[in-house]
Amino acid sequence: MADTLDFELPERSRSVVETAAIGTGDDALDAVASWFEGHSNLEARFGEILRQSIDEVLDGQRTGRFDLAAKTVVKTERTYLGTKVEIICQAAFNLQRGRHMDYLIDGHEVDAKFSGKGLVKQSIPREAVGEICLLMHADDTRGTFSAGLLRTTPDVLSPGKGNQDGKREILAAARSRIRWLVHHGRLPENLLLKLPEATRQAIFNPPGVKGRGNSGQQRVNQLFRLVQRRIVRREVVLTVAQQDDGPKRVRDARKSLLPEGILILGHQDRHPHIARELNVPIPQQGQWISVQVVPVERDDPRPSTLLGGNRYSVVRAGESVHAPSPLTSY
Amino acid sequence: MADTLDFELPERSRSVVETAAIGTGDDALDAVASWFEGHSNLEARFGEILRQSIDEVLDGQRTGRFDLAAKTVVKTERTYLGTKVEIICQAAFNLQRGRHMDYLIDGHEVDAKFSGKGLVKQSIPREAVGEICLLMHADDTRGTFSAGLLRTTPDVLSPGKGNQDGKREILAAARSRIRWLVHHGRLPENLLLKLPEATRQAIFNPPGVKGRGNSGQQRVNQLFRLVQRRIVRREVVLTVAQQDDGPKRVRDARKSLLPEGILILGHQDRHPHIARELNVPIPQQGQWISVQVVPVERDDPRPSTLLGGNRYSVVRAGESVHAPSPLTSY
Repeated sequence: MADTLDFELPERSRSVVETAAIGTGDDALDAVASWFEGHSNLEARFGEILRQSIDEVLDGQRTGRFDLAAKTVVKTERTYLGTKVEIICQAAFNLQRGRHMDYLIDGHEVDAKFSGKGLVKQSIPREAVGEICLLMHADDTRGTFSAGLLRTTPDVLSPGKGNQDGKREILAAARSRIRWLVHHGRLPENLLLKLPEATRQAIFNPPGVKGRGNSGQQRVNQLFRLVQRRIVRREVVLTVAQQDDGPKRVRDARKSLLPEGILILGHQDRHPHIARELNVPIPQQGQWISVQVVPVERDDPRPSTLLGGNRYSVVRAGESVHAPSPLTSY
Repeated sequence: MADTLDFELPERSRSVVETAAIGTGDDALDAVASWFEGHSNLEARFGEILRQSIDEVLDGQRTGRFDLAAKTVVKTERTYLGTKVEIICQAAFNLQRGRHMDYLIDGHEVDAKFSGKGLVKQSIPREAVGEICLLMHADDTRGTFSAGLLRTTPDVLSPGKGNQDGKREILAAARSRIRWLVHHGRLPENLLLKLPEATRQAIFNPPGVKGRGNSGQQRVNQLFRLVQRRIVRREVVLTVAQQDDGPKRVRDARKSLLPEGILILGHQDRHPHIARELNVPIPQQGQWISVQVVPVERDDPRPSTLLGGNRYSVVRAGESVHAPSPLTSY
């Protein structure tokens, strides 16, 4: 049943398959699954673990990288990503270390296995054969991830290769045996990866400034000028700025873009209220959203907010933007 | 000359060997060396790069680890440390990427090579043979590091092994050919690694609290109670707390330890002034220092500071500490 579900679900269905009542016949594995399922927001928790792991390995603030598939990401870093996932997962769920495997969950040894390629086809070292594995997979391009439990008994593994270190691969057919915790979950967005190439070029190479001479501040200005009404995470700002004081860069961008009628809203002060009134996504801590506004009449039916005594709405295509002089601060 | 220096210098001499006037006969390498030597505080810069790299791989905040040699640090992480050093070094010196090697410095291709074992004996891949290598080495236990430049010509390398990927080792004899940038420099201290085992135990297992149940706050209190008059870096607090709000843990420890006459001084307010008056090291941003004080008479000759109208000095061995009631805040 789980097997067919795997293929029938639309790719971005984001459903957490509810299998809590379906036993696997493996009491230990069921206990571990129940332990995880006792947490609220399991999809958000695993999603954040994987997003954070990928972002730390990309190290955008220092490298400007946002794409794991880029050739500037070397093999050592791809391998390390699995270790980072294991560490962050342990910290996020406050897991005890196992005696033989990575974790001890509800008294059972569990090994963490992350792969960028997929849940199956992962290689399992000899010492983890027969153990409960927490398999995790993320696809940053599609913005999806999955996490599931599988006992890696010999029948779900390829025959070992004599000349290797005894590593065996999880067979594709083992997919039907996975106890899903999150199936095709939604990975928090990698905004820069999702932008059209032309937009990225315009952000990383601001007009009138050549090559390495362009400043982080100008790139951050371009980011908020060109990418509007979308949540921008702190990591995105740091990757674009390649500087360590992201919030300061955002504050300066806020001043620079005001004459263009562009607001940059954060999670503090009246900003969430303004976002709600303008009907754009509401930033949480460590997030911002930019939106270009125009003055509107009091009886204008579209969503609007009051700033400095005047009423403003989100700009429409073709609408001309005047420098909104009363908008000195917000 | 450099070779004998290498062995004659005392281990913790912290001298940056001044070789700026000594050419190697390799103009490109000399140009790269001059470029680095044009930076002030070269020892502090490289020291900070290596400290930061080690701390990020240890990830003490999530793992509680402070020792690269611990078996909880896996091979993948040790390998990744070299990549992290390369990334942080690039960002710290704002280096351009090379076309074939890691960096382009003053127009010359330079490859970064870090090893925890030593500057020589590092393995050099086939594509880096004949290139200028920035060799870096750190010994966290001794608290030292070195950085130097070497052109990895075939005569300083071991013969390649046919069955491998063409990697060749830098011969020990090549040491005399290294153009030192920092020789036996001082690595910023790994405080937890340097503490006696009994002190560490008392920090990580506060009395009256068993196993995993003890709180990060109690561990941080123990840290500042037991480790006095020594600079405590932010990373140390995070590793002990295994929580993300280090400064908050320090503020709470400050309140908890006040009845014991223990001050925790930071870089803000009057704290540096107090540290100076008490004649203890002065914390910079992201650093703290704890010191136990006793009230003293106005004419006491030892260094003292005025707090809440009373005069205090650093406690001496055997001196009894009364709860310093006037010390309500500082």
